[in-house]
Amino acid sequence: MNSPKSQGTRLPAALLKKSCVDVFTAVGVPEADAAIIAETLVLTDMRGIHSHGVIRSARYIDCINAGGIKPAAELQILNDSPCAIRTSAAGGLGIPAASRAAALAMERAKQHGVAVVTVNHSDHYGASGIYAMRCADRGLIGMSMSNTCPLVAPSGGAKATIGNNPFSYAAPGGKYRAILFDICMSVVASGKLIIAAAEGRKIPKEWILDANGNPTDDPSEIYRDAIMLPFAAHKGYGFAVMVELLSAVLAGAGITSDVNSWNTVPGRDADTGHCFIVLDPAFFGGLAEFKQRTDLLIDRLIATPPAAGVDRVRYPGEIEFEREADAEKNGVPLPDSSVDELRRVAKMTGVKLDF
Amino acid sequence: MNSPKSQGTRLPAALLKKSCVDVFTAVGVPEADAAIIAETLVLTDMRGIHSHGVIRSARYIDCINAGGIKPAAELQILNDSPCAIRTSAAGGLGIPAASRAAALAMERAKQHGVAVVTVNHSDHYGASGIYAMRCADRGLIGMSMSNTCPLVAPSGGAKATIGNNPFSYAAPGGKYRAILFDICMSVVASGKLIIAAAEGRKIPKEWILDANGNPTDDPSEIYRDAIMLPFAAHKGYGFAVMVELLSAVLAGAGITSDVNSWNTVPGRDADTGHCFIVLDPAFFGGLAEFKQRTDLLIDRLIATPPAAGVDRVRYPGEIEFEREADAEKNGVPLPDSSVDELRRVAKMTGVKLDF
Repeated sequence: MNSPKSQGTRLPAALLKKSCVDVFTAVGVPEADAAIIAETLVLTDMRGIHSHGVIRSARYIDCINAGGIKPAAELQILNDSPCAIRTSAAGGLGIPAASRAAALAMERAKQHGVAVVTVNHSDHYGASGIYAMRCADRGLIGMSMSNTCPLVAPSGGAKATIGNNPFSYAAPGGKYRAILFDICMSVVASGKLIIAAAEGRKIPKEWILDANGNPTDDPSEIYRDAIMLPFAAHKGYGFAVMVELLSAVLAGAGITSDVNSWNTVPGRDADTGHCFIVLDPAFFGGLAEFKQRTDLLIDRLIATPPAAGVDRVRYPGEIEFEREADAEKNGVPLPDSSVDELRRVAKMTGVKLDF
Repeated sequence: MNSPKSQGTRLPAALLKKSCVDVFTAVGVPEADAAIIAETLVLTDMRGIHSHGVIRSARYIDCINAGGIKPAAELQILNDSPCAIRTSAAGGLGIPAASRAAALAMERAKQHGVAVVTVNHSDHYGASGIYAMRCADRGLIGMSMSNTCPLVAPSGGAKATIGNNPFSYAAPGGKYRAILFDICMSVVASGKLIIAAAEGRKIPKEWILDANGNPTDDPSEIYRDAIMLPFAAHKGYGFAVMVELLSAVLAGAGITSDVNSWNTVPGRDADTGHCFIVLDPAFFGGLAEFKQRTDLLIDRLIATPPAAGVDRVRYPGEIEFEREADAEKNGVPLPDSSVDELRRVAKMTGVKLDF
């Protein structure tokens, strides 16, 4: 996650979304799917997660051009039980498939109180928390997760054999909009290593191994196939395995090394898997009660006396909501690297950008 | 979690279970509930989690004697929707209530593919992973979680305002029995601090704060109201909040400081909450496929080349299953502190132990 300080440009959300729609429809993505992708990527930048925002457009379209992603694939429902559903993205784009699968999970959770929808033969689905927050914004509790190609070593291991497997959840509040939590399973995301390398800083030896599996305090090893280590050793490893079980083993998607990286093999079906678990508080004590109790929890958490050097304790998601409100008011802040990738994809697709 | 090396005695599982049944029935716990508690506590010791095994009997019975736990309370179902169910332990013992709630979740998951059952007005439910493993042993994927009284500081905080909130999951394998993962949200459990203090060792400054909220490397602060820190800072904090949302906010149980500690107020309804989420692979690709794919995942994880100084990479739960098999064959290894607590409770209840 990049901090807002690294951003060079502010652009209106509507303009950014239009640009995204234009480049995706230019490569054969249906209008409705392009709109979903645009909404998802721009909202991700608005929340400050620039590594998963519009910067990804060019890579998705690289894969479409290489034949590895089918631009007009439709989500297929593989079984039709009411609240436990396996679907396939049929080799299509991850974001529209995941959006439809999560929407189906929400619809079924509203009918039955809980629903699980898995997706296989999918691709990178953007920021995990997007789908969880869609649930919270509709008065539901959502969990969202996806496997990835191997990037992380199991605890005790010296090779990346499991994904960085993002996991997120969100739950609705009343006076507070929601709680939102969105993480991956490595100690740090690669962005932090890149910044440390640029600044010539050493890093703690618990963050990564070099490509040979040896501990290192040199962040520039990220450019030489460094192996990410799981956060909190066996705890991060165990959560990565949980995500693999639900979004790959259960979903019928590629397991660990069966997931094809877009970096190394763009001309393939990635066979990434996702899983969405959605609960409706209306079936427990009612939505009003749930929101009021979430507010109480947040009130208590943020009232915790801060540690030395900390201004105040925050609740999960608070910073993202602040950034989103700021971007709505003042335009979407974009780092130069995001603007560069948009210009690259515009050139590639023959689309004229209005900025 | 204690290592098998610290154990002083081995006793047959049947003998230990009989002793547990005798002491619980002596204080008014119905025979069926006493059998569930005995089974649960002894199995926990068999898996090497001695902090949550038979050592707990005396504390549960302390609470019954103080009037804080109703020994014969029955689980109440508060709503009757098919797969989203809120229940109440009605101020009774945590283990029988959680066992019945988890069994209900399993039954409904087998009918609908997924089910969620929450419990409120409960108490300490033993080792979280017990319930998850019951699911896996029945061919289901289980998640089990519970809140606790405040023990951990939010990241950036200097006071314990959220619980250590255990979370576990398990999933069935074929040639491998299952994957089992069972953690709490602090960097380390208090047991590790007690051992470090006994050995006069310093601890990393990321483990705990002293009672005033200042960093410390002195493990003996655990005896002076030290504050636990969450693992991986905001990641452990966020998972603790997830457990609080599902097992307290959604369940209608006590939220954070509303949960009464048995240490400080044994004569009360703890109002602890639990949540069980169970999925049936039969509704996705079928149980046989799921088990075969879980085996494949485990094969790949344990084939990871080990880091320097590590003999081999393990899968989550492997060590617990090895200990369980050893205890079945050679008797249940018990640390002296567990035997001491059994003797204390036997004396308290007038039960004669056969060892």
